[in-house]
Amino acid sequence: MSRDLRYLILADGLFHPEESKTANAVIRYTPERVVGVIDASRAGKTSQDVLGFGGDIPVVATFDEGLALKPNALLIGIAPAGGQLPDSWIQLLSRAIENKLEIWNGLHTFVGDVPELAALAKKHGVTIHDLRRPPAKIQVANGRVRNVKATVVLTVGTDCNIGKMTTQLQLLDAVRGHGIKTKFAATGQTGIIIEGSGVGIDAVIADFIAGAAEKLVLDCAKEADLVLVEGQGSIIHPSYSGVTYGLIHGSLPHAQVMCAQPSRTAINRCEWVKIPPLVDFIKMSEAATSALRPAPVIAVALNTYDLTDDDARRVVDQVARETGLPTTDPVRFGPEPVAGAIAQFHWDRPR
Amino acid sequence: MSRDLRYLILADGLFHPEESKTANAVIRYTPERVVGVIDASRAGKTSQDVLGFGGDIPVVATFDEGLALKPNALLIGIAPAGGQLPDSWIQLLSRAIENKLEIWNGLHTFVGDVPELAALAKKHGVTIHDLRRPPAKIQVANGRVRNVKATVVLTVGTDCNIGKMTTQLQLLDAVRGHGIKTKFAATGQTGIIIEGSGVGIDAVIADFIAGAAEKLVLDCAKEADLVLVEGQGSIIHPSYSGVTYGLIHGSLPHAQVMCAQPSRTAINRCEWVKIPPLVDFIKMSEAATSALRPAPVIAVALNTYDLTDDDARRVVDQVARETGLPTTDPVRFGPEPVAGAIAQFHWDRPR
Repeated sequence: MSRDLRYLILADGLFHPEESKTANAVIRYTPERVVGVIDASRAGKTSQDVLGFGGDIPVVATFDEGLALKPNALLIGIAPAGGQLPDSWIQLLSRAIENKLEIWNGLHTFVGDVPELAALAKKHGVTIHDLRRPPAKIQVANGRVRNVKATVVLTVGTDCNIGKMTTQLQLLDAVRGHGIKTKFAATGQTGIIIEGSGVGIDAVIADFIAGAAEKLVLDCAKEADLVLVEGQGSIIHPSYSGVTYGLIHGSLPHAQVMCAQPSRTAINRCEWVKIPPLVDFIKMSEAATSALRPAPVIAVALNTYDLTDDDARRVVDQVARETGLPTTDPVRFGPEPVAGAIAQFHWDRPR
Repeated sequence: MSRDLRYLILADGLFHPEESKTANAVIRYTPERVVGVIDASRAGKTSQDVLGFGGDIPVVATFDEGLALKPNALLIGIAPAGGQLPDSWIQLLSRAIENKLEIWNGLHTFVGDVPELAALAKKHGVTIHDLRRPPAKIQVANGRVRNVKATVVLTVGTDCNIGKMTTQLQLLDAVRGHGIKTKFAATGQTGIIIEGSGVGIDAVIADFIAGAAEKLVLDCAKEADLVLVEGQGSIIHPSYSGVTYGLIHGSLPHAQVMCAQPSRTAINRCEWVKIPPLVDFIKMSEAATSALRPAPVIAVALNTYDLTDDDARRVVDQVARETGLPTTDPVRFGPEPVAGAIAQFHWDRPR
């Protein structure tokens, strides 16, 4: 990952704070790697205009305009539900490969499995990174992870796309600042792009979710005293809870950090599932691990991007009061209260 | 499935009440389809000797002895953890195919994906049934299952291999006897073999577990007023809870039937996970669905195969008292108390 990547990000029609999750995170954490974003509906704007960060990174209307920005990789920056590769993109991907752009793909549909694209990539000597392709051999989880000496902290959340990855990435430097050798365990395509390693946990065969999570933690623990695991989904998500529980029970955290968006009262796209009050949800999350290993929720990370500064400050204070836990919006107000809670937990934990 | 199947079951070294789960269930529910079992370590015995049911079905030492019993299909009757296809079986499978035996395989490793076996099957015109191969297109779950008019009842359990499939199969005729048009929704390879349809829910890609469960219930509900869904794993199973939760939240049952084995106090092969007292576990199981749809546990099905008749009767009575729920061992004492509870629930349910 140390080589000079220059991404052109495909986010057509969906470049938006709440939609283009992969694009947004790559721009937030590795803006130096991004030369432009394709979205005809927002062409002429900058990333700063659309997301509120990312500076002058331009939004362009077409692949050809993007090519003029001299990318060396095309990154698929949006993840439609179900992850299917739209047919209309095949032609764009062909052109990218013909122009020697590497392909970075986080969808469930693998670009390398589309025969015409695989053949084209071979012909042009272009690498296709299908980030969700699972490792070849995964064992069933069996609790080996309990022998790990590192402290394992997992972000959990009330819903998808609410800040579980962002919180860990925001925390990373802050926790290291406390003098703890820390590793980020990426479990989704975006985290993998940013970290350069990890396992796309939602893409493994169902029986092996926990096994993949266990292996990831075992691997990360070799290099660190503290492993920050990127959570997925929600324990009440009607579509993805299987992934969530497999990850919780496979990674077997010592502690959890709760991620929530104060303005969100129901599961996105499944509004019939109401999100319980945060204090109750914290109890549910602790109950979710209790039969295997007690993992207290030790801090709260709020996503307040849709609130004013004043409202955000008010809600952070209110949640801290209601839960009795260190609380912050790690993007808006910095990660410190949560980072401090993790460091303290790490030092105090009985071994 | 109506054709004349004559299975030779491969269960080498593992034909046993607690090991050869697939073999045992096929012998219990479709003994007329089984001509013999391969297990050199128990050769000369009968199924009755080994399992306590299955009558004169012989156990033989070798494939050639089995061939003399005139099978027309080889069924892989044991499921090692992880589901990998042992190399030593490849030769046996080759011989089966050369002898025109269909292959019925419930492992995660697909026989049809082993090039030499696929080629051989093609050459001999032999069908390979890879029962865990997922359907081609599965949507992400979105709650469409809430529109189903049929009553959905799911078996859940404290552990794997504890009676979740057996209970539903034992219940089927009894519930139909109450005059309710009922369909069994198979979610595992053994259930699929017996029912002739279903989805191997543990073999789909993690993001689609709930979607596969939802589709299965939608399909079964077209043909029935009551759908009995085969549960999988356990909400506290460190290896398989992701499958369990995906199935629960995808099938969205109206009621649950709790399956437990009184003598089992910890998760099999993961003994570090203790099984909570049944009354507590019932509360945990009801909490597992409460945010999506309340699904009370309405009855208990115990697996008492390792107890004496007297002890079994005593424990059934005790659990009925402690839980306040209709309780039986559906194999030993018949399914009626549980079947009656399901019928009553179906009739009384507010719509």
